[in-house]
Amino acid sequence: MSTPRTLKKRVGVAGMGIMGSRMAANLVEKGFPTAVWNRTAEKCVPLADKGARIASTPRELAETSDVVITCVADPNALGRVVFAPDGILHAARAGFRLIDCSTVSPGLSRHIAEALESRGAAALEAPVTGSKMGAEKGTLLLMTGGKQEIHDELMPIMMAIGGKAIYCGPTGAASTVKLLGNTIISFMLEGLCESLVVARKAGLPGEVVLEVVRAAGFASPYYDFKGKAILKRDFDTHFSIDLLHKDQTLMLNEAAALGTSMPGLAALREVLQSARGQGWGQEDIAAVVKVLERSAGLS
Amino acid sequence: MSTPRTLKKRVGVAGMGIMGSRMAANLVEKGFPTAVWNRTAEKCVPLADKGARIASTPRELAETSDVVITCVADPNALGRVVFAPDGILHAARAGFRLIDCSTVSPGLSRHIAEALESRGAAALEAPVTGSKMGAEKGTLLLMTGGKQEIHDELMPIMMAIGGKAIYCGPTGAASTVKLLGNTIISFMLEGLCESLVVARKAGLPGEVVLEVVRAAGFASPYYDFKGKAILKRDFDTHFSIDLLHKDQTLMLNEAAALGTSMPGLAALREVLQSARGQGWGQEDIAAVVKVLERSAGLS
Amino acid sequence: MSTPRTLKKRVGVAGMGIMGSRMAANLVEKGFPTAVWNRTAEKCVPLADKGARIASTPRELAETSDVVITCVADPNALGRVVFAPDGILHAARAGFRLIDCSTVSPGLSRHIAEALESRGAAALEAPVTGSKMGAEKGTLLLMTGGKQEIHDELMPIMMAIGGKAIYCGPTGAASTVKLLGNTIISFMLEGLCESLVVARKAGLPGEVVLEVVRAAGFASPYYDFKGKAILKRDFDTHFSIDLLHKDQTLMLNEAAALGTSMPGLAALREVLQSARGQGWGQEDIAAVVKVLERSAGLS
Amino acid sequence: MSTPRTLKKRVGVAGMGIMGSRMAANLVEKGFPTAVWNRTAEKCVPLADKGARIASTPRELAETSDVVITCVADPNALGRVVFAPDGILHAARAGFRLIDCSTVSPGLSRHIAEALESRGAAALEAPVTGSKMGAEKGTLLLMTGGKQEIHDELMPIMMAIGGKAIYCGPTGAASTVKLLGNTIISFMLEGLCESLVVARKAGLPGEVVLEVVRAAGFASPYYDFKGKAILKRDFDTHFSIDLLHKDQTLMLNEAAALGTSMPGLAALREVLQSARGQGWGQEDIAAVVKVLERSAGLS
Repeated sequence: MSTPRTLKKRVGVAGMGIMGSRMAANLVEKGFPTAVWNRTAEKCVPLADKGARIASTPRELAETSDVVITCVADPNALGRVVFAPDGILHAARAGFRLIDCSTVSPGLSRHIAEALESRGAAALEAPVTGSKMGAEKGTLLLMTGGKQEIHDELMPIMMAIGGKAIYCGPTGAASTVKLLGNTIISFMLEGLCESLVVARKAGLPGEVVLEVVRAAGFASPYYDFKGKAILKRDFDTHFSIDLLHKDQTLMLNEAAALGTSMPGLAALREVLQSARGQGWGQEDIAAVVKVLERSAGLS
Repeated sequence: MSTPRTLKKRVGVAGMGIMGSRMAANLVEKGFPTAVWNRTAEKCVPLADKGARIASTPRELAETSDVVITCVADPNALGRVVFAPDGILHAARAGFRLIDCSTVSPGLSRHIAEALESRGAAALEAPVTGSKMGAEKGTLLLMTGGKQEIHDELMPIMMAIGGKAIYCGPTGAASTVKLLGNTIISFMLEGLCESLVVARKAGLPGEVVLEVVRAAGFASPYYDFKGKAILKRDFDTHFSIDLLHKDQTLMLNEAAALGTSMPGLAALREVLQSARGQGWGQEDIAAVVKVLERSAGLS
Repeated sequence: MSTPRTLKKRVGVAGMGIMGSRMAANLVEKGFPTAVWNRTAEKCVPLADKGARIASTPRELAETSDVVITCVADPNALGRVVFAPDGILHAARAGFRLIDCSTVSPGLSRHIAEALESRGAAALEAPVTGSKMGAEKGTLLLMTGGKQEIHDELMPIMMAIGGKAIYCGPTGAASTVKLLGNTIISFMLEGLCESLVVARKAGLPGEVVLEVVRAAGFASPYYDFKGKAILKRDFDTHFSIDLLHKDQTLMLNEAAALGTSMPGLAALREVLQSARGQGWGQEDIAAVVKVLERSAGLS
Repeated sequence: MSTPRTLKKRVGVAGMGIMGSRMAANLVEKGFPTAVWNRTAEKCVPLADKGARIASTPRELAETSDVVITCVADPNALGRVVFAPDGILHAARAGFRLIDCSTVSPGLSRHIAEALESRGAAALEAPVTGSKMGAEKGTLLLMTGGKQEIHDELMPIMMAIGGKAIYCGPTGAASTVKLLGNTIISFMLEGLCESLVVARKAGLPGEVVLEVVRAAGFASPYYDFKGKAILKRDFDTHFSIDLLHKDQTLMLNEAAALGTSMPGLAALREVLQSARGQGWGQEDIAAVVKVLERSAGLS
């Protein structure tokens, strides 16, 4: 990051959602010549105001960048951004690099890496965790999969958007680890929500439950963060139910392909599905508590 | 704990299991005149060697102690220790105190507290968390339920066996919070086990998963502790599958009585039941991973 | 049943609920000298109008009957009716017979049988299936557990209230088989409800689903019966959600005691619990569909 | 079916699996000029011996047939057979008819119907139920989706392979109904297996359970069929675990798309996944009992 500004690589960011827009802002802030693209162009405007250039297609974004970071909602969106006629792949050339921060299946990651390699370029899968605030502060945790030397080469750019990058293994490894991370989050979330609803029915203040968890050997900052949000009824979206449901589905499919059962996760996915069916899919995953409250006659 | 030795209350401990025996050792160590009782007397011998007196019945233990701590396996055992003809209740008198560290139903806690109060004595429910090591080092976390003044009065004794005591509310509140704590542990455990089995099938080192979890916003020392045990195949019992299954059953019954559903916990309990059915009930809860490994064809 | 009226045994019926009152009516109708008892006496009046005698306690009922049939809501109720100071047990004597048609745990059945045998009497567990209509028409299916000769001896009385009695084995066997029957019903019910809600969301008439099921190899009159009720929104109680939930709990406890897991039933019980939490516990089990409809945003 | 032989339509069958080969045999038997195709050609030989012509590609099959019946394992296989360069679509012309008997997603069914219609042809989705024996005897139940007049037009051919065809609605309706049928089967199977394992642990003969079910209001020939297979340990494949798991996955995906949760089916799918992980994916779905037996320490 001490590299003189003039030598900094040109970085493109595709996808101006909660995460991508904050990544782009950090890149601009840290002096990278930054271009942005989004399916609906108006979301690019705030970044242009900060100094980013707007590209009209993913392909143009890639043609005018040394490195493109993709951060889109799901495997279908990523497939289009990369493989469509105006997609990134058609601008891939020797030396070009793709960092994919989306959460997708290991299979799609491998498919993309192979396509880029066939054109002399390289891809690094780099899904992130840390939610909106981490993206804003540049403290995201990146998990990477691909060649170790590509990981090393891209560290300066990754350290502009995140605080740490852990190399997980060959392409596919990082997608798998990311899905496992969201699996662990799913269990923590459901455990917390089921507990807080029982507490409420028992007339116990939720704060007492959080205080005990905080003091226990199984404490985690996550319980505090989500627990307080639930007690304040703050369902402002850091990570939406729809997105976690999508990741749970990817995980269950991957588990089935690998030949292992996930009886717990399967049960949890249906609770999120119930939240989606009741119209809460765009709310934060903390809103899962509303499903359990309704089941308990609390709403 | 700065009280002069001669003024220290006489404390009895009923139940020389993993937790109770270590509590008693800490009481002896810290200068409390300590008596012990266990259903099978030979488990009292190591404590007698350290200076504890052995009582022949729970009743005698209570007659010769100012405060009795009960720490037994389940509601049935506690019921016998308190209500049987040679039980604690029959020695209860004005000023006598019972600290119950067992994990039981809120209903039984209330039943015991009322019985003691009718004889001028008082009970404090004080289930603990912190496992074997916490009991050994005297750093257990106690959750208490009962009258606030009884909690305050008994703090010196609680601080001889634990590092912190959180007052949760009236009798029943602490039992409920304890069951909720074990609910949260259940979810963390299953999430970790499902994740590590998927990782193993995907050819990913489990250490990478633990490293990512450690760096993430949902980190918890618990994942490290149990994760390393699983990777080392160390199923030495800190907290047995049978005991957690018992607590999950109490929790589900309590939830049904309160009128709330726990779809996640219900699924997890059946995984533990499968471990019990396969003969692993006495192993540590980390051995739950073996159920999932077998389902994945790994054993 | 061809026995001359004057030789017919005196039969007492304890429990004037949906099933018991109809059994008593059939006994009166078929010429048995019949006495009835209920916890709240006014429910006995319609039977008295038909010619039954009203007993003031279960003990008096037993003293003045050769055979007592118990048909009460749950294990607690049965325990009181048999073991309380004014309970049946205290009137048990050589030759006295108890037919218990309640659905309880195998353990309680064995406990009752032993208590009666110690007084020279005998008990036959005889839980029934067939719902309200079967009780009314006298076509219930009885499953019996106990000694084969007691089953044979009591056949004339059983055939006055039911159409068939299957001998299952020693005491406990019939309770187990009954709980298994309700397990099978639970799965059929949930499968049907999940299917009808999907159909509704897909814009498919539920009648088409029922027509296909009727024509398939997995057809069952039960699907027609419950399916039509659901499509007509007829949740008039044949078998209440509270009662099935109670039986599912008994089954899961029994399975845990036997050392086997029931991952499906555990999931289904939580759906019923959700129905109870939402205030539908006294409605027919067909009302389980409302839980799924709500999860699908249909109400 | 009374049509003179010479006027009978030329029928092609793609997919010589358990179902397709028996359908083709019935068509030959009933005098339809029949051609067959299979991915691996040797499976066509027994049909050729009976008088069927072998086509070298799905396209050729379609070119030389008036009506093609597809009966392949999963959506991917069907996609290839229809859309590949040598696929059926390229031979579609005015008057050509496709009857798809595979079990696929409603979405794929609609996609195929539109593609054929754009070429002046028509498709009827016609998934079947009835297992191997039904296919052999020509008593399958067909569920159809598409235009009512196409259903009517194709009845003579459908009645050569099945005993009944129920028109469910527009394209997609039959796929949905088929998936719902397999959902109902899934619940019946799991309920039966959980019950038989509990019975075995309780020392109760499985035959007694089957006898009671047979006499109860929830009787179904399916319980007898599968129950006897389980008691005889006959896991010869009528319907494989892999195929039912595939259908359950399609159903859960469809339910998520429609916005409804299926908490029961999600739990059941993981039991099948456990069977697959343990190497029993190719066995009959009755082998699901082995998962539960292992969980109960019975193997």
